[in-house]
Amino acid sequence: MADFETLHWQGDGDLDITGRLVLIDQTRLPGELIEIELTDVEAVWEAIRVLRVRGAPAIGVAAAYGVCVGIQTVPQADEDALFARISEVCDYLATSRPTAVNLFWALDRMRSTAAAMRGKESPTGIATGLLAEAIAIHEEDRQMCAAIGRFGADLLPDDCGVLTHCNAGALATGGSGTALSVFYAAHEAGKKLHVYCDETRPLLQGARLSAWELKQRGLDVTLICDSMAAQVMREDRVQAIVTGADRIAANGDAANKIGTYQVALAAAAHDIPFYVAAPSSTFDLSLSSGEEIPIEERDPAEITAGFGPSTAPDGIGVYNPAFDVTPAELIKAIICERGVIEPVTAENVAEMLG
Amino acid sequence: MADFETLHWQGDGDLDITGRLVLIDQTRLPGELIEIELTDVEAVWEAIRVLRVRGAPAIGVAAAYGVCVGIQTVPQADEDALFARISEVCDYLATSRPTAVNLFWALDRMRSTAAAMRGKESPTGIATGLLAEAIAIHEEDRQMCAAIGRFGADLLPDDCGVLTHCNAGALATGGSGTALSVFYAAHEAGKKLHVYCDETRPLLQGARLSAWELKQRGLDVTLICDSMAAQVMREDRVQAIVTGADRIAANGDAANKIGTYQVALAAAAHDIPFYVAAPSSTFDLSLSSGEEIPIEERDPAEITAGFGPSTAPDGIGVYNPAFDVTPAELIKAIICERGVIEPVTAENVAEMLG
Repeated sequence: MADFETLHWQGDGDLDITGRLVLIDQTRLPGELIEIELTDVEAVWEAIRVLRVRGAPAIGVAAAYGVCVGIQTVPQADEDALFARISEVCDYLATSRPTAVNLFWALDRMRSTAAAMRGKESPTGIATGLLAEAIAIHEEDRQMCAAIGRFGADLLPDDCGVLTHCNAGALATGGSGTALSVFYAAHEAGKKLHVYCDETRPLLQGARLSAWELKQRGLDVTLICDSMAAQVMREDRVQAIVTGADRIAANGDAANKIGTYQVALAAAAHDIPFYVAAPSSTFDLSLSSGEEIPIEERDPAEITAGFGPSTAPDGIGVYNPAFDVTPAELIKAIICERGVIEPVTAENVAEMLG
Repeated sequence: MADFETLHWQGDGDLDITGRLVLIDQTRLPGELIEIELTDVEAVWEAIRVLRVRGAPAIGVAAAYGVCVGIQTVPQADEDALFARISEVCDYLATSRPTAVNLFWALDRMRSTAAAMRGKESPTGIATGLLAEAIAIHEEDRQMCAAIGRFGADLLPDDCGVLTHCNAGALATGGSGTALSVFYAAHEAGKKLHVYCDETRPLLQGARLSAWELKQRGLDVTLICDSMAAQVMREDRVQAIVTGADRIAANGDAANKIGTYQVALAAAAHDIPFYVAAPSSTFDLSLSSGEEIPIEERDPAEITAGFGPSTAPDGIGVYNPAFDVTPAELIKAIICERGVIEPVTAENVAEMLG
């Protein structure tokens, strides 16, 4: 199934710290499938910044590998220089996407790994240990995706239509995705699926990325505009909906790409189960409900000139919220790598994560 | 308020049959406000065909004026040549947009008008009579829009947010529009409004046309993506929704631009009144319900490459329904030029139209 790899470390043999980070340049998709080799930390920073690699889990993995690329500039055997450089590289990479929680989490993990080896390993051993940690982060992400896929696939009937919004796929993770992993696993298990992909305005992650990777992996895909989802449901083309999530509150309210809430409302009106697939790291138990999740507003130009030429009057007022919150009562179940939370209540969330 | 005119006849004085049809080239909006002068029937046909003028009522008015332009090629005083030409021009214009009901209706009216004058008027008198009929069709359209505006404005609270989808505005009619006429009338009556405009994928009539004309006429406008409508409602920014309709069945089910149904579902979930504004000519009483309204499917390229460069994988499957049907139970009231149908039931529809 792995006909493309979103990102990977490439060296001579296992744990070759002189290797490089190779990733698909997602800004060129779907027109061109191009892998780029990143051999200095500035290139990794730039790739994260301009969304050549995107999706919270994938950004975390890229940043971990970025640390390995970054320390290649340090003379071997100089421990002080190595630790100074680790610190510098982590601080620098942290500025690439200031709101990506997985980025900070992965960088912290790399820092702690290095600190735990200080005085016990040679600088070369520490460098190798950091690469091993980056590979472990990547592998854990793969396992997480696979587990979500397995749990989710069981929820889908055979021979059904499914619908997703945005890209919670292989391109957003180090593995096979979250929401899309459910479709891949069902497909692999021999279930017949037809996937409807919302194009996902304004940035078209559904059209550019989800449609591309689903097709690439041999699934039947139909692209629609976001405004067509309810009509597709009304025509009985869809029996389940699965999306990802960016942040989930303690009561199960889930923030995801703008438009997800509207899909969930339409699903409720048609009595179609609406599932959220996300790793347990997506839960933010410090927030009692979705009301507390801040909604980022983005550049009006994404809407007025998202495709090159302006398609709206000059100076028009624009509202561009990047996310919305789907309340727990509209979510049939949350699929995470530990299992399925159903019904979605604060008690069941606490029990699964506790 | 009439800072722009969608289309009009321009001649030397009243009923100058040697004049020409002048219309705003809507394919250049919102970037450029350019009026074009159409002096032969081929140019009128092309303008309708490529959507320089669009919207069912506006197409009807344009076609009526198109007949007047078309007969200018006939030598004065030759009645047989005149009637042959009227027939030829009407047949030709009818091929410009084969599914536009108002187009056929307006052309039939021009044909009947000419037929009724045959033998009673000179060829010159008949030509003048045809221009008078085209002007009457235009004027009736203006009156229809104004009446819808008056009835609808009464339904809006003062100081409220409203939302619309697609363009049922001045640019779609010979007057001030249907749905947007309601906003214009409320604004003129001194009510404070803030209008949210769905961009209306795939062809962006909301972004390109509604946002433009509302701003042009001094209303407060905010452009959003179609997927943001539910979020805007959830944030309590909107107290009423008004859209147009392309065809309404006898029970009040209303077909309109794709995405309207999704907006109506979100409105119901937030307990916000959803109104349809449309002239009585939009009702098709031969259809007992919306189930019988055929849904036109359009070119996949509108979705995959609507803005120039392709934004989806080559060869991807696409579903592109142009319309959807909002069931009567989701419609708070239908505003037509004869009054307000509320609640929307087959009985009340029959009574208003009977």
